[in-house]
Amino acid sequence: MRLTVESINPNVRRAQYAVRGELAVKSEEFRARLAKGGDSGLPFKQVVSANIGNPQQLDQKPITFFRQVCSLLENPDLLKKRDVLVDGLGYKPDVIERAEWLLRQVGSVGAYSASNGVPAIRESIAAFLERRDGFPADAKHIYLSAGASSGVNTLLNVICADKSTGILVPIPQYPLYTASLSLLNATCVPYYLDESRAWGTDLATIKKAYEAAKADGVDVRCIVIINPGNPTGASLPEEDIRAVLDFAGREGLVVMADEVYQTNVFVGKFHSFKSVLRTMQRESPGRYDAMELASLHSISKGMVGECGHRGGYFELVGFDPDVEAEVYKFVSIMLCAPVIGQCLVELMVNPPKPGDASYELYKREYSAIYDGLRHRADALHKAFSRMEGVECAEPQGAMYLFPTIRMPRKAVEAAEAEGRSADEFYCLALLEATGICVIPGSGFGQADGTLHFRTTFLAPGTEWVDRIVDYHKGFMDKYR
Amino acid sequence: MRLTVESINPNVRRAQYAVRGELAVKSEEFRARLAKGGDSGLPFKQVVSANIGNPQQLDQKPITFFRQVCSLLENPDLLKKRDVLVDGLGYKPDVIERAEWLLRQVGSVGAYSASNGVPAIRESIAAFLERRDGFPADAKHIYLSAGASSGVNTLLNVICADKSTGILVPIPQYPLYTASLSLLNATCVPYYLDESRAWGTDLATIKKAYEAAKADGVDVRCIVIINPGNPTGASLPEEDIRAVLDFAGREGLVVMADEVYQTNVFVGKFHSFKSVLRTMQRESPGRYDAMELASLHSISKGMVGECGHRGGYFELVGFDPDVEAEVYKFVSIMLCAPVIGQCLVELMVNPPKPGDASYELYKREYSAIYDGLRHRADALHKAFSRMEGVECAEPQGAMYLFPTIRMPRKAVEAAEAEGRSADEFYCLALLEATGICVIPGSGFGQADGTLHFRTTFLAPGTEWVDRIVDYHKGFMDKYR
Repeated sequence: MRLTVESINPNVRRAQYAVRGELAVKSEEFRARLAKGGDSGLPFKQVVSANIGNPQQLDQKPITFFRQVCSLLENPDLLKKRDVLVDGLGYKPDVIERAEWLLRQVGSVGAYSASNGVPAIRESIAAFLERRDGFPADAKHIYLSAGASSGVNTLLNVICADKSTGILVPIPQYPLYTASLSLLNATCVPYYLDESRAWGTDLATIKKAYEAAKADGVDVRCIVIINPGNPTGASLPEEDIRAVLDFAGREGLVVMADEVYQTNVFVGKFHSFKSVLRTMQRESPGRYDAMELASLHSISKGMVGECGHRGGYFELVGFDPDVEAEVYKFVSIMLCAPVIGQCLVELMVNPPKPGDASYELYKREYSAIYDGLRHRADALHKAFSRMEGVECAEPQGAMYLFPTIRMPRKAVEAAEAEGRSADEFYCLALLEATGICVIPGSGFGQADGTLHFRTTFLAPGTEWVDRIVDYHKGFMDKYR
Repeated sequence: MRLTVESINPNVRRAQYAVRGELAVKSEEFRARLAKGGDSGLPFKQVVSANIGNPQQLDQKPITFFRQVCSLLENPDLLKKRDVLVDGLGYKPDVIERAEWLLRQVGSVGAYSASNGVPAIRESIAAFLERRDGFPADAKHIYLSAGASSGVNTLLNVICADKSTGILVPIPQYPLYTASLSLLNATCVPYYLDESRAWGTDLATIKKAYEAAKADGVDVRCIVIINPGNPTGASLPEEDIRAVLDFAGREGLVVMADEVYQTNVFVGKFHSFKSVLRTMQRESPGRYDAMELASLHSISKGMVGECGHRGGYFELVGFDPDVEAEVYKFVSIMLCAPVIGQCLVELMVNPPKPGDASYELYKREYSAIYDGLRHRADALHKAFSRMEGVECAEPQGAMYLFPTIRMPRKAVEAAEAEGRSADEFYCLALLEATGICVIPGSGFGQADGTLHFRTTFLAPGTEWVDRIVDYHKGFMDKYR
């Protein structure tokens, strides 16, 4: 008996993950063809990977301070040549001090750490959370992870008991959530975000989804929020967060706050679920004490953009200690998060401060990345506003725009004839015509009868944006 | 409703992972108490973590060539100062060339790679496998992973369809296997290794376990082999591998060969499952063509010992392409293995060669680590041979010894009175008396009525070995 698609784990078979699906694979084939040189037979000279939030694959340069420290962590022998570091390579004293401190904490970045992460790094994260939120944080409840994805995987594994467990997931969503729930054979309870309110959360919609699932016998245990949003880019106002927390408190739901884009906020201010929860607990003593919150962060996004290093963490608030022991056991089976990634988490949450030797450069690099993202987001948004049948909310945060497209009926029919959804058809044709890879809205989920695509605004320049505009015009003309 | 141990995922609750269990946690508490200084109240001055194969936490220094390259990958700006690197820091030209080449392949180590790993690194692994085995290897079937653990997790997730799926697992085993099967709620079909034959595989035992499971309605799909063995340290002779492959071929089982200790071999020679399979296929054309083999390797062990970097890979042989597509989808959900870990895999499989500028140092460091491991294994083995009631096979490979202990009846009763197994009781008392952390055999599985413990032979010096001898004498005297 050989393994076949029919005989393998049906949960794996059913899982879908469009971010790295057919279009991504095809775009890599195009890239390889172009790299070979000669006549590629393709109508473009370059592939633009706007399908995935992979900052350093595109324009984003790593932050110098972070990488200087990492170079010393990888080769501690360099610390024996301090004069060469300082005079020959221009390493500042705070780079050297931080590397020495981290090495004292980890021993070697080639050694396993404690399963939940290096204790001193967890302390440093706790201190950051206290500064960010103005409320205490305890290193004991912080778990380092290999990117936020691995944290989500851990939490869903622990929370989902069986098929009857339901998890409220926003639609559209980053498909890690639906894919993980498929793998666990648990029940995804979708709730739609409100496109008319810049993709905010609508409590009535959440309640309806929750009640319907409950009526179906689903044991709904948790609500996932992605803030700032992926793929929507939405940045939630405090009142939306309050409403979600209050609802979760009433219904006894775990709140899972995916906050990996917390520094990518262009409009308003980022409100962490932790700070809002603690504020509500202070305002209404006793009322929200039993609430359970898991919040996740990562080095992959923001101005750090170190996704290839696979670093992140989650904080648990209000969990039963025995349940936390099970979380600990679960993470221990995979031993520990990559230690150099853990060190990058420490650098992210504790960057150079005013007065530190590396501060000016850090500040300049950080701001340049932020401004560049914002500039490109605006350029893209402007382009979308010129495109017939396309509407797109103002860029608020994260790394994505998620425009809606209204397509001519003939285009929908042409898609159907190929056995594809119309948005997939549109995105595939865009890739084949321009080399630009975006992801159809169906990969994230969207309200019936609507069509979208997600694009990052990471790719350098704006020339590619014009190519989208041109392509769109041709597409509309062809199928009008 | 708050989450409780009773309401969470029962598969997580049931999973056991002794390598980082109670004893490991307790040893870390002791370490923290000692680090505080002052009177710890403990009868020892140092904790010796002989519970886990974590080379760089103990004596093992990372290989200089590897870490020099990594320092350049982390900070490519250094490559602009070639003269400082060469004259000031003593970096050899092959270090610089390799870093430049890897950077061309990965772009930035902070960027996501392809889900299955950087293409050029997969090519390099394929070339290594061809040199090692004398048979072709194809990069297309190689998948980079975050250590071998993550590879095992991927493979078991794909192979295990439901509770009825059975996986033949050696006992004693590295508990990753039983823990992963618990998480998947699939069936572990244990087969006992033959302690009387230096922990070799005994085909009659395997067949018996297989037939019994089949008779129980279990759909046995796969046999796991750990070679060299963990926790046993056994290095399988070619005839054992042939017998396993022939059996798996007859019964249509996937063979999963965990070969992470392939360079830690002291007796005889390492035979890869791939090379033996290809040899059998050549000898008996057609007969073994349908066989499926997955073999795993890692940067965590051997003379590399870079477990904190979480790097590894697996090669699939003979899998259905549609099943491979599902493997690809599964790994894509967690995005990619840490990229610096992938680079370390490349360095491991393609180290400096004779004539390269870094070769002499590499060779010297590599041999010193190998000789040191061997020396300490022998010292430990000799100590065990002096201990009453302890028997231990000659060290053959891996990083472990797994002695058997015969304990006085009074000790077994004292353990029972505490609600512990006798080996756990013994190891806990050892930790409390000496600070030495080893793992009871029950954490790996052992034949009924036998007692063992696993110790690594990584800790520096041999003074701690004498402490075990003294403790053991006292223990035996106390309970005689």
